[in-house]
Amino acid sequence: MADRISLLRRRMQELNLSAFVISSLTHLRYLFGFSGSNGLGVITEEHQWLITDRRYREQVKHEVHHAEVHIIQQDLFEPIKKRKLFSKGMRVGFEALHLNFRDFSRLQKAFPDVRLAATEYVIEKLTISRLPEEIEHTRRACELARRVWETILPVIRPGMTELDLSAEISYHSKKLGSERDAFEPIVASGWRSALPHGIASRKTIEYGELVVIDFGCVYEGFCSDVTRTVMIGQPSEEQRRMYEAVKEANRRAIAAAKANIPGAELDRVARDYLKEQGYDKAFGHSLGHGLGLDVHSLPRISPVSKDRIPADSIITIEPGVYLPEIGGVRIEDDILVHNDGAEVLTDIDRELIIIE
Amino acid sequence: MADRISLLRRRMQELNLSAFVISSLTHLRYLFGFSGSNGLGVITEEHQWLITDRRYREQVKHEVHHAEVHIIQQDLFEPIKKRKLFSKGMRVGFEALHLNFRDFSRLQKAFPDVRLAATEYVIEKLTISRLPEEIEHTRRACELARRVWETILPVIRPGMTELDLSAEISYHSKKLGSERDAFEPIVASGWRSALPHGIASRKTIEYGELVVIDFGCVYEGFCSDVTRTVMIGQPSEEQRRMYEAVKEANRRAIAAAKANIPGAELDRVARDYLKEQGYDKAFGHSLGHGLGLDVHSLPRISPVSKDRIPADSIITIEPGVYLPEIGGVRIEDDILVHNDGAEVLTDIDRELIIIE
Repeated sequence: MADRISLLRRRMQELNLSAFVISSLTHLRYLFGFSGSNGLGVITEEHQWLITDRRYREQVKHEVHHAEVHIIQQDLFEPIKKRKLFSKGMRVGFEALHLNFRDFSRLQKAFPDVRLAATEYVIEKLTISRLPEEIEHTRRACELARRVWETILPVIRPGMTELDLSAEISYHSKKLGSERDAFEPIVASGWRSALPHGIASRKTIEYGELVVIDFGCVYEGFCSDVTRTVMIGQPSEEQRRMYEAVKEANRRAIAAAKANIPGAELDRVARDYLKEQGYDKAFGHSLGHGLGLDVHSLPRISPVSKDRIPADSIITIEPGVYLPEIGGVRIEDDILVHNDGAEVLTDIDRELIIIE
Repeated sequence: MADRISLLRRRMQELNLSAFVISSLTHLRYLFGFSGSNGLGVITEEHQWLITDRRYREQVKHEVHHAEVHIIQQDLFEPIKKRKLFSKGMRVGFEALHLNFRDFSRLQKAFPDVRLAATEYVIEKLTISRLPEEIEHTRRACELARRVWETILPVIRPGMTELDLSAEISYHSKKLGSERDAFEPIVASGWRSALPHGIASRKTIEYGELVVIDFGCVYEGFCSDVTRTVMIGQPSEEQRRMYEAVKEANRRAIAAAKANIPGAELDRVARDYLKEQGYDKAFGHSLGHGLGLDVHSLPRISPVSKDRIPADSIITIEPGVYLPEIGGVRIEDDILVHNDGAEVLTDIDRELIIIE
């Protein structure tokens, strides 16, 4: 993690920041290994601090090795004031996406004579191109997802509820070694499969329905994120056609992915194909997103993205077609982007599986 | 949910607000029934809006009945501008704890001539005293937790990992009807049980260890939150003494709880008793907290709380003792506060359970 702090210090120099305040819990884990639910990080040229409360007094001894730890009673900014870490006129960056207005006001009030600089995506951008061990962690998380899929597939049957299946996913995920669910699993069947983000409900899975199953595992904090769609009973012609179109859109996008491609261009590969197939209005979300400590991270892969996809980044490719009358299909893979192409990390079959 | 919106409008009048912008997802669920992951609510004297993105176009048709829905392409503030919902000089409240600095800046830029008013805990305070159906939902969530506990207790054995047990909790929780885990279950054994908030790890549960098990269920969005501590093998004298002290602190605090007691006074009942027993420094967190749509809600029950506990509120009582060399004990119940006392909703035995 010392590497990560060095990367951040270099970036701070480029941004002309003498100090950087970290309020995202995901970033505290990334920089310091801290997994608690309340904390603040501060990096200056000389210091690296983790500030947290008494509940974590013991935990930090085990988790945090690259920071000076300060335990507070109430106010996370207290040790900074007390030890005069910020001097007059100093330019101090903060995370505009991860600091709420209340804490921003407190920061401003506590340090009226420093120059606060709102920043966005500073640490997020550092993590887009992954260090080798970080790639390895995501690889493990993807491998766990593959094993979860193989374990739950035989369990899926009509008559079970979406929540039943979601319970099986979370259970086997942990039993196989995932730290937690990367996110609440999505299990959406029949009319609910046309909701791109419907988490599992008490609805029963029935014959004639498509079932969209979207879940992820976590290894050393790094996430995987995979979706497969199965058919309960024989598919109608339209259901089969939707499925094949999404599968081909997924294939084309993966084939097109390589370092430096603009996110919007990659999105277009899948979107144009689905449009040709008559599904342009049925694909109402982005093609994918970066995948790291957060499930949704940079780079963006959407029609309006201005990001390029760098080498050694890990992204999802997840085209979908959603028709309220018929249901939905989504097929999502995680890929590692190389200079000359991409490597699929979610090694799971993409042919339509029919469950009788 | 119409009741809840009326409550909010009344509160807005008291605060002299002509409009209120809601950015907390929990509050969007509370006011409108919306369970998506991106949205904004706006309440004015005449209008009630839910703004979200295309992914939720279908979902809102099923979930949202008490609001006009606006689907955006990119910017959640867009429909407000377009339809000129805010007029010049209007006082518009926002949630300072739930709006990040970036979105605050956007709001300010989009509406330079309205008067933005930072508010804290407006909706949180509306929900402290519960409506009858909300009490019923928490009651169901507590009943689910009781059934989960009865189901997992026979499964606990030395040799399993903390994650194995955590997997069982989440699994049975969903199978019994919980919408999701109220939070990632805490399973902390041996030295890890002295970490008040250590989530489950790959550590194996061994003979001679205390195991702190803290989990919660969710019913119609409302959470339960319960902790029991079990002993693997026969307890040492000190482990037994710790357990009995925490059990008695829990009992005394529950007996003292009634409407209008200050949160700090209730905290003191348990803290003073633990101090008498020589454990004053070993209880390093608050006695409890309000429990609702969020697991941690108002009122606060801690040494520095300035809140009173109103009638019809639901709170946790969770004293603990943590000794790094020996382990930890926490016993947590959820109680409904009445004028003349409190009713325990988590009807689970509190005697020390020894697993051989």
